Amino acid sequence: MTEHLVVIGGDAAGMSAAAQARRRRGLDDLRITAFERGSFTSYSACGIPYWVGGEVAEQDALIARTPEQHRANGIDLRLRTEVIELDHAGRRVLTRELETGKEQWTGYDQLVIATGAEPVRPAHPGFDAPGVHGVHTLDEGAALIDTLHEDVRSAVVVGGGYIGVELAEAMLLRGLHVTLVHRPAEPMPTLDPDLGRLVRLGMDKLGIEVVTGAEAVEVLLGPDGRPRAVRSTVGEHPADVVVLGLGVRPRTALARAAGLTLGAHGGLLTDETMRVAGTDGVWAGGDCVEVLNLVSGAYQHVALGTHANKHGLVIGTNIGGGRASFPGVVGTAVTKVCDLEIARTGLNEREAAAAGLRWTAAVIESTAQAGYYPGATTMTVKMLAEQGTGRLLGVQIVGGAGSAKRIDVAAVALSCGLTVGQLISLDLAYAPPFSPVWDPVLVAARKVATLVGQGPS
Amino acid sequence: MTEHLVVIGGDAAGMSAAAQARRRRGLDDLRITAFERGSFTSYSACGIPYWVGGEVAEQDALIARTPEQHRANGIDLRLRTEVIELDHAGRRVLTRELETGKEQWTGYDQLVIATGAEPVRPAHPGFDAPGVHGVHTLDEGAALIDTLHEDVRSAVVVGGGYIGVELAEAMLLRGLHVTLVHRPAEPMPTLDPDLGRLVRLGMDKLGIEVVTGAEAVEVLLGPDGRPRAVRSTVGEHPADVVVLGLGVRPRTALARAAGLTLGAHGGLLTDETMRVAGTDGVWAGGDCVEVLNLVSGAYQHVALGTHANKHGLVIGTNIGGGRASFPGVVGTAVTKVCDLEIARTGLNEREAAAAGLRWTAAVIESTAQAGYYPGATTMTVKMLAEQGTGRLLGVQIVGGAGSAKRIDVAAVALSCGLTVGQLISLDLAYAPPFSPVWDPVLVAARKVATLVGQGPS
Repeated sequence: MTEHLVVIGGDAAGMSAAAQARRRRGLDDLRITAFERGSFTSYSACGIPYWVGGEVAEQDALIARTPEQHRANGIDLRLRTEVIELDHAGRRVLTRELETGKEQWTGYDQLVIATGAEPVRPAHPGFDAPGVHGVHTLDEGAALIDTLHEDVRSAVVVGGGYIGVELAEAMLLRGLHVTLVHRPAEPMPTLDPDLGRLVRLGMDKLGIEVVTGAEAVEVLLGPDGRPRAVRSTVGEHPADVVVLGLGVRPRTALARAAGLTLGAHGGLLTDETMRVAGTDGVWAGGDCVEVLNLVSGAYQHVALGTHANKHGLVIGTNIGGGRASFPGVVGTAVTKVCDLEIARTGLNEREAAAAGLRWTAAVIESTAQAGYYPGATTMTVKMLAEQGTGRLLGVQIVGGAGSAKRIDVAAVALSCGLTVGQLISLDLAYAPPFSPVWDPVLVAARKVATLVGQGPS
Repeated sequence: MTEHLVVIGGDAAGMSAAAQARRRRGLDDLRITAFERGSFTSYSACGIPYWVGGEVAEQDALIARTPEQHRANGIDLRLRTEVIELDHAGRRVLTRELETGKEQWTGYDQLVIATGAEPVRPAHPGFDAPGVHGVHTLDEGAALIDTLHEDVRSAVVVGGGYIGVELAEAMLLRGLHVTLVHRPAEPMPTLDPDLGRLVRLGMDKLGIEVVTGAEAVEVLLGPDGRPRAVRSTVGEHPADVVVLGLGVRPRTALARAAGLTLGAHGGLLTDETMRVAGTDGVWAGGDCVEVLNLVSGAYQHVALGTHANKHGLVIGTNIGGGRASFPGVVGTAVTKVCDLEIARTGLNEREAAAAGLRWTAAVIESTAQAGYYPGATTMTVKMLAEQGTGRLLGVQIVGGAGSAKRIDVAAVALSCGLTVGQLISLDLAYAPPFSPVWDPVLVAARKVATLVGQGPS
């Protein structure tokens, strides 16, 4: 008998799952229907800042796979169709076509929930005015780009995390005067403040006005009903356009209403196979789930396309009759502001404290290439090790070109539970155009290993 | 009682060991004497090609620590002094001052052998003529640079391994017509030929004449006694200057004469603490030792400054009363020819066969950044996995800017014995300027995992 797989959400996790299941099971064996509320499928939300900044010229470049391609692949894809109710016991979903309002129940044997995340938008006055933009979807990106006329000269970016700093860069590349308004003391709050400070200094140099310790509380509107300034707890900041970079939260109202278990961060909880806890045949992945942090042992919410794609692969493989699992994350993230690269993985000091760990930290400065190599860029590495065991807990990097991707060494080491002593002995690639003779990650390992009383091993 | 540490060789391994021991033990506790045959200490031999190419302007830039700095650090450093005999039973060394010819015995309690490596120079006719250059030492680099006058228009580089391709780049940057003469079928013989072919194509594009399957058998001299061409087994190649990039072998004649055990590649054999097998208080490190390859389980000779520095740290820590070990290597190496980056780690197909393993290989093409990101460069990744277990065996990379350092992910994974299924799940840094949503290393892992029947895990 043909099984019916229903997918809610047509972006990375959902359509990766659908495509992988399709690859493994024929049309006679598995029917696949996917519902997507928007007009696009399988696009790179992470690429939107670069499109807004003008570095990526075409919206189409961000689309990995079009609706037509999915349909040609044997997936019954319904765009502009929202799933408004999930009847978990009855194994069916209620959909509404956005154009016609037509509602309809569809039964399923297997269900993939990939409803993604929704941007945080404060309820403060003016934040819902035209000219105040989120950039979570292609439609939102297009709307922001449409706004950027000649008479738009200043932008306020609200929020100094990943999306915030990327949007600050984008607005700068568009030639605007940019103010970043950010609540904590330093930008990039997933870094410790000492490294966040380096990001602030880098943004200062680029001409971005970084206002920290300041909460944006109102968008002040001009007579045309469009922004003229943002009022924060420390003052007024001129803004012809306002961009929101306050992060996202899991979009799980549907799942919550259906009685599925959510975690402390509002995301769905799954086992390693990405099956929703306590269900049979219900899977979830991407920005709507919580993931296990392998370093802290706690669940967290990480909205990243790379995890969403992995979840989709795992779900599709398992639905397709194979065996696959997603063990968790170590908290790796990377971004840049113009030439300043920023990366982190594992736990920062705040997170280590929250996990009840005792740690020692070390900070080193080095260069991404041999110091004498032309154009060698400086980089700062902060490393945390557990006291007693010497286990690597986390790494943060801020530096010039060639710095950030080095975080991957720490990411793999964290996955494997290496100590900082073991880190020192790693056989990392060395040649003067690529690294000093001691890779900066190893320099940091040497320093923190000495502090925790470990030699190379 | 004050112990006496004697160090033979004043470059990376020897002086790192001396400096680390000095840091841990005071002048009253440990006397340190270091003998160096040449005039320099602690310099970056790996940087010489970039100095020859003109990218690094000053010889001094390559010197990490001068003789004066070492002496100020409490190390009795004797330059231009060669150790000509090692009396292992009598715990003493016989030295000869190169200027005066004066010979003298010096006793030791602890001995560090860090005699380095010597370049392979064929005994064929003409190879000892002026104008035929090795580039293993600063003196040799300076001699080559002195040769590069206006009337020098063509260079033949003999040997297409790491040093050979780096010197080809250097000669190109000097404006010379460059011919690379190389015996195997493709350059970079530590890559498999299918990846080596990509290097050849890249060098072709740069205007380097790559002559493979050809052994250089004679340097033909002009009436001035200087090179005019190189004769190979396939023809004559014009050469106003000839540069040798045929690799190096351990410089261990002294150790051999002293009856110390050498390995199959002519290098000293040590345990994990870098103590020479079968001795008490004799240590060795750097280019004169063989190292354990953790993937194959066999010893090999790898002349790389990064290993030499690690050996020195381990030796100095152990002599200094600490505990340190060097577990081995996984065979990581990286280089570039202009914009073409090249890296490898673990075992290639030839090495896997020699190790008696059964493997499956996959080759993928991807981009180093998101495909839509401006300036995204293509890269090719080849990955080998063990049949049955799915254990990662090796990775090779050839590609544009941002490709090569990714080899470090595989290097760490090899150290930890990860399977390719586990590789797929690694939490590597993702953002469009740094990587496609699936990092190319993970794309390769997906492909080879499928071939060996493994899912993400």
